[in-house]
Amino acid sequence: MFKDASVAEIELALQDAWKAFHIYRKLSLKQRADFMRMVAKEIEAIGDELLQVAAEETHLPEARLRSERTRTMFQLTSYGEACERGDWLEARIDTAIPDKNPPKPDLRKMLVPLGPVIVFGAANFPFAYSTAGGDTACAFAAGCPVIVKAHPAHARTSELVAQAIHKAVKAVGLPAGVFSHLHGVSFEVGKALVEHPYTKAVGFTGSFNGGKQLFDWANQRKQPIPVFAEMSSINPVFLLPGKMKQSASETAKLYAGSITLGVGQFCTNPGLIIGIDNDDLQTFSDTLAGEIVKASPGMMLNTGIFKNYVERRANALSQEEVATVAVSATDPQLEEGAPTIASVTAPVFMQNPILHQEVFGPYSLIVKCRDIAEMQEVATHLEGQLTATLMATEEDILQHESLVEEVKNICGRFILNGVPTGVEVCLSMQHGGPFPATTDSRFTSVGADGIKRFARPVAFQNWSNELLPAELKNENPLQIWRVVNNERSRSGI
Amino acid sequence: MFKDASVAEIELALQDAWKAFHIYRKLSLKQRADFMRMVAKEIEAIGDELLQVAAEETHLPEARLRSERTRTMFQLTSYGEACERGDWLEARIDTAIPDKNPPKPDLRKMLVPLGPVIVFGAANFPFAYSTAGGDTACAFAAGCPVIVKAHPAHARTSELVAQAIHKAVKAVGLPAGVFSHLHGVSFEVGKALVEHPYTKAVGFTGSFNGGKQLFDWANQRKQPIPVFAEMSSINPVFLLPGKMKQSASETAKLYAGSITLGVGQFCTNPGLIIGIDNDDLQTFSDTLAGEIVKASPGMMLNTGIFKNYVERRANALSQEEVATVAVSATDPQLEEGAPTIASVTAPVFMQNPILHQEVFGPYSLIVKCRDIAEMQEVATHLEGQLTATLMATEEDILQHESLVEEVKNICGRFILNGVPTGVEVCLSMQHGGPFPATTDSRFTSVGADGIKRFARPVAFQNWSNELLPAELKNENPLQIWRVVNNERSRSGI
Repeated sequence: MFKDASVAEIELALQDAWKAFHIYRKLSLKQRADFMRMVAKEIEAIGDELLQVAAEETHLPEARLRSERTRTMFQLTSYGEACERGDWLEARIDTAIPDKNPPKPDLRKMLVPLGPVIVFGAANFPFAYSTAGGDTACAFAAGCPVIVKAHPAHARTSELVAQAIHKAVKAVGLPAGVFSHLHGVSFEVGKALVEHPYTKAVGFTGSFNGGKQLFDWANQRKQPIPVFAEMSSINPVFLLPGKMKQSASETAKLYAGSITLGVGQFCTNPGLIIGIDNDDLQTFSDTLAGEIVKASPGMMLNTGIFKNYVERRANALSQEEVATVAVSATDPQLEEGAPTIASVTAPVFMQNPILHQEVFGPYSLIVKCRDIAEMQEVATHLEGQLTATLMATEEDILQHESLVEEVKNICGRFILNGVPTGVEVCLSMQHGGPFPATTDSRFTSVGADGIKRFARPVAFQNWSNELLPAELKNENPLQIWRVVNNERSRSGI
Repeated sequence: MFKDASVAEIELALQDAWKAFHIYRKLSLKQRADFMRMVAKEIEAIGDELLQVAAEETHLPEARLRSERTRTMFQLTSYGEACERGDWLEARIDTAIPDKNPPKPDLRKMLVPLGPVIVFGAANFPFAYSTAGGDTACAFAAGCPVIVKAHPAHARTSELVAQAIHKAVKAVGLPAGVFSHLHGVSFEVGKALVEHPYTKAVGFTGSFNGGKQLFDWANQRKQPIPVFAEMSSINPVFLLPGKMKQSASETAKLYAGSITLGVGQFCTNPGLIIGIDNDDLQTFSDTLAGEIVKASPGMMLNTGIFKNYVERRANALSQEEVATVAVSATDPQLEEGAPTIASVTAPVFMQNPILHQEVFGPYSLIVKCRDIAEMQEVATHLEGQLTATLMATEEDILQHESLVEEVKNICGRFILNGVPTGVEVCLSMQHGGPFPATTDSRFTSVGADGIKRFARPVAFQNWSNELLPAELKNENPLQIWRVVNNERSRSGI
């Protein structure tokens, strides 16, 4: 339906972005926030057409799309507010000490934008992690122009959102190059975008193969650039014995909901459940099985994701000594994913890397351990994760400290007695974990701290107050929090 | 003199570091700071032997080594204080909103250590950027064990400092694996260290080829890890016309000192001077030439660096249309570097990438531009830099804003009317710039913000106050600055 961007179109988008960068980065924090609020407004102004088109393209229910749209607008406005608040600038001032030997010069530091950012939309979040999603919002807040490569599976949705952004760009009088929107089914489009010398950073949400490829291209450039790719996570859940004794059934019911939520198509879907092989785990497993049998298959996002689920699920279930615990009793229609639970013993799990791979969809694998020591061994065998969860009593936590530490060490978000699905948009959120969950565990893609992915510090040495940017002037006209001579302060100097 | 670490020794060091990590990361901030203060104390306790050995190995004068030792101890103690102050933890709290739909869970985030860090010592800073230097201090503050690969050019110095760290480790009762010290002339040692699965980050200061190689190895791992390599910078200085009219001679004298300081062996040495080809630049050039002719050649750090200087200098001077402006009138003795100034026109400079490469030593190239527009063109042709300097009046800055912005965009530290040599150790320092100055412009290797290179955020979701780490407890027992529900605060909740 849409033609892939040509080499000339890609070149033009980057040239425009580079020119726009020189204007956009000089906008005040308030101007950036105003622009972001305008983007949110224009998205809302599209109205129900946006929901209809997205529903057609992604098979997601209207209620979900409606709330995702709200979330997307909240991201834009709240990251805009964070941009204005200026905490993310990490402003620091060390005033001169002329009579030190050698004299200490006046030094003031703040974050500045990296330059044009390429954003690759996510299949599973047509709004919140796509065209005007979290990466775009963070880049705009940081002062970076954005070029979005539309996800081919929801290209029309992407086009509608892009039009809204174009309108906002025009409404606030910015150069058009602040935002470009390109289509590309071929990987060549993505490659050209990542390799262009004017590209200074990349945001991506999707598969391991896709993200890793972008990461490699970015690092093989003459000037390597940062890539924040959110890729692959199976979000292990550790069932501790005290908690299981108390509430094996309740936990199972809670998890049946989390595993099947949105047909399991969340990066935080709990794909691995680790427990001690005893009667309580049997109760958990039986209850979960009962729920899964009752759960309906759901239409998946697109044919590619459906086929991928069918293949990966079949592959996992066909591994030696993997038992199928439960499958939805309802026959799936075409492109529907059937909720499925499997189980395996810990030694088999630890020896078979295929079982550590994400099966994107309503699937979870129960790993049965002999004891706590084996649970901990499983934890040490896991790769980096977006989230890890403990279902545990306070006593469980205190008794099994080394397991707790081991699990904390592999994840970005560490949940106690909850489910990993549901990613709150707030400053304390960490959505990013050790590789392969993401390509840089030191950053997050959800919450206003995500702005820092697209900025770098510059120290101004020996600049007069008149010439310093407002953020670093003595009088602190923006009233932002700064660290002045090692003391945090909002006052002037 | 020292044998390269064997495969078994490398394996043992990493195994020990990994085990020690599980203990060391649980130390309180104060305990880490105490340990770092103890390291500083033990380094001081070595006494003059350390200065003597370092002088033998590096040919650096005693006064310089004495002040570098002071700097090293200051880094350890001041990063220790920063560690205790806890700003670097980026603690954030968003309290639960149970009646939100869906309910908002309690979320609290802070930085946690990455794991064992490999530090490669720098040839030109035997103390401050080597064994117990900035990278080691930052890693210790972050909660990471350190394995140092000694720089072969000052292996005995490194060994002495390592002994001091071992003593401090013992004195405060830490497991020995918190710090290991390995020798390695062969690149195989470095490769094995970077590729080991327990290695979680790398710090490096040195040549472009060395740093880029580590970066590539790190990214080709199954689990890529962050590398902060500080590599190559020619630290351009832009002479603006108003300033030149006022003080061409004074500027030249100032720069003669900066270019020859420490025989030019600083990563911030001003290797490129860009001005408008007019009478003022001639005055600048003549004065600089006069100073350079009078300047004495100095003994370089080691044979490798001396040979490299001779070769690169000769190569630069032999490029077409490069004129030699001045060379020290004193014949250099063996292993001495001769202060040298060359010049070239802007068009020739822009077309010849060899002239953009660092000539590590007392060498600087004057680039003569037709006008301000051509100066700006030169700026856009430059690669990323640790520093860039403007010699400019206030009027120069206001009149040539787009040049100023262009120059800011390529550097980490932006100096007005000063010299780039001299890197103040304070929170506002930025020592890190766009590639190839460093491999990640978003971080610094000088100042306490450097701690963040070796840490990543973890969000705790739904943890009870009793189970949360002290840094995130309601009552804020450590009295650190946190952001609570988007407001910065040092109070409890």
